[in-house]
Amino acid sequence: MKVTKMHGLGNSYIYVSEFEEQLREEELAPLAVAVSDVRKGIGSDGLILIGPSRVADVRMRIFNADGSEAENCGNGVRCVAKYAYEHGYVHKTHFTVEVKSGIVEAFVHPDADGLVRTVTVDMGQARFGASAVGYTGQDEDGDAVLDIDGVAYRGTLVSVGNPHFVSFVADAASFPVAEVGPRIERHPDFPQRINVEFVTPRGPSELDFRVWERGSGITFACGTGACASVAAGVRKGLLDRRVTVHLLGGDLEIELQGERIWMTGEAVTVLTGDYAWPRG
Amino acid sequence: MKVTKMHGLGNSYIYVSEFEEQLREEELAPLAVAVSDVRKGIGSDGLILIGPSRVADVRMRIFNADGSEAENCGNGVRCVAKYAYEHGYVHKTHFTVEVKSGIVEAFVHPDADGLVRTVTVDMGQARFGASAVGYTGQDEDGDAVLDIDGVAYRGTLVSVGNPHFVSFVADAASFPVAEVGPRIERHPDFPQRINVEFVTPRGPSELDFRVWERGSGITFACGTGACASVAAGVRKGLLDRRVTVHLLGGDLEIELQGERIWMTGEAVTVLTGDYAWPRG
Repeated sequence: MKVTKMHGLGNSYIYVSEFEEQLREEELAPLAVAVSDVRKGIGSDGLILIGPSRVADVRMRIFNADGSEAENCGNGVRCVAKYAYEHGYVHKTHFTVEVKSGIVEAFVHPDADGLVRTVTVDMGQARFGASAVGYTGQDEDGDAVLDIDGVAYRGTLVSVGNPHFVSFVADAASFPVAEVGPRIERHPDFPQRINVEFVTPRGPSELDFRVWERGSGITFACGTGACASVAAGVRKGLLDRRVTVHLLGGDLEIELQGERIWMTGEAVTVLTGDYAWPRG
Repeated sequence: MKVTKMHGLGNSYIYVSEFEEQLREEELAPLAVAVSDVRKGIGSDGLILIGPSRVADVRMRIFNADGSEAENCGNGVRCVAKYAYEHGYVHKTHFTVEVKSGIVEAFVHPDADGLVRTVTVDMGQARFGASAVGYTGQDEDGDAVLDIDGVAYRGTLVSVGNPHFVSFVADAASFPVAEVGPRIERHPDFPQRINVEFVTPRGPSELDFRVWERGSGITFACGTGACASVAAGVRKGLLDRRVTVHLLGGDLEIELQGERIWMTGEAVTVLTGDYAWPRG
């Protein structure tokens, strides 16, 4: 089976083109589990299929390493856009990608050699406040203040499709994310739990960023968290509308145009090859 | 760069042929680190080079995921033998492989289609007793009895190049390896520490096997541990000279011929492809 491994900020998937490979629906979950296994498979966060779409220029489907199907993944969309452009599935630099949760716009930025190293994708709009994120307490102009062991933690409540608590702290780099993150994620006033960001502006156009992802803990790249954090910073007057966010896995460029959030970041091909799948 | 990912019992490496690729010595450590990284590289336990030898039929060099060079790896030797035979670097089924620690004999068992699924390799000889493994206490006919929190643990002291404490227990499957293993590994009477195996015969030719590897903890496959355990079982009259060992990652067949230990196990190709190494 022809496979490509790509990553964005270290969030890596095995990509298979449905233009080239015929896969049965019931094979997809076991294939995702098999390729993701670093010991007996290749090693990745999951499997992404690239195929034809009836409603967009190209379609992507995302399967996690446990075989479950995911809604969307910003790092994955960038890699799909790169793949679709470089393989000639699309011939324009601005096109649409169908994902399970809807349609995403993408801009690829090809070099003179036709290779795509960075991609900009539409990340939707931010919504603020208690009702946007399922907070059962009272918000204060979009912020929640949580008491954890007698210490007050203030955070902006932001949804960019998924819910975030964005806390501006004195020094994100040294903040005890692993201790405080899970306490906020599982605070009783967030019955559906929440993603937690600890951020520190370095001036108005740069942001240091750490994340505690709901269900995953500390991760190297969280695109929606970067978007939510910049939207919160703009709302508070702390950030300009175009900001470089420094994540553990690398940098993302976040830009607000009106209500719309655009995210620009790398898309990197690691490997192309033939995977020897012991098909049933 | 042309790469192949192979594994034996889930112990996986990225294999690069020096017959095809020119690599500079100073590139090897950073290449091993880069390919082993599952996030931005491929994902493996390290890098293995296959090249010409002046003293054997083929030479292998092993680099761990941290870039350090390793002495030998039984799972790696099997994969190298498969690779060398399938690529026509050797034209016989019994040949020699140069490793850092010496020369290893290998037998490949090709199918009618010329593909190799299992390989037998020479694992040297077993030596028994305190001096063989660096035990500072007194052994009792090759066994040590350790007192850990008032519980006595008996184990056979075996070296097969590296040191092992092989303990025959009532049920290896349910044994608390993660609790007891590190206590034995770091017992003060093993100043150089030791690998620890907990094993249970299912009759004379089958062995359930769990391992606590020195410096690594619980692993899926430890070839030297399987050899040491069978040698200990034969010495105690508990096992025949040909035994199937059930490890977490799969089965190994261990056979004693005189003093010589032979290990047979799978060698599996996962992937062949081109790795996009951002060479300096």
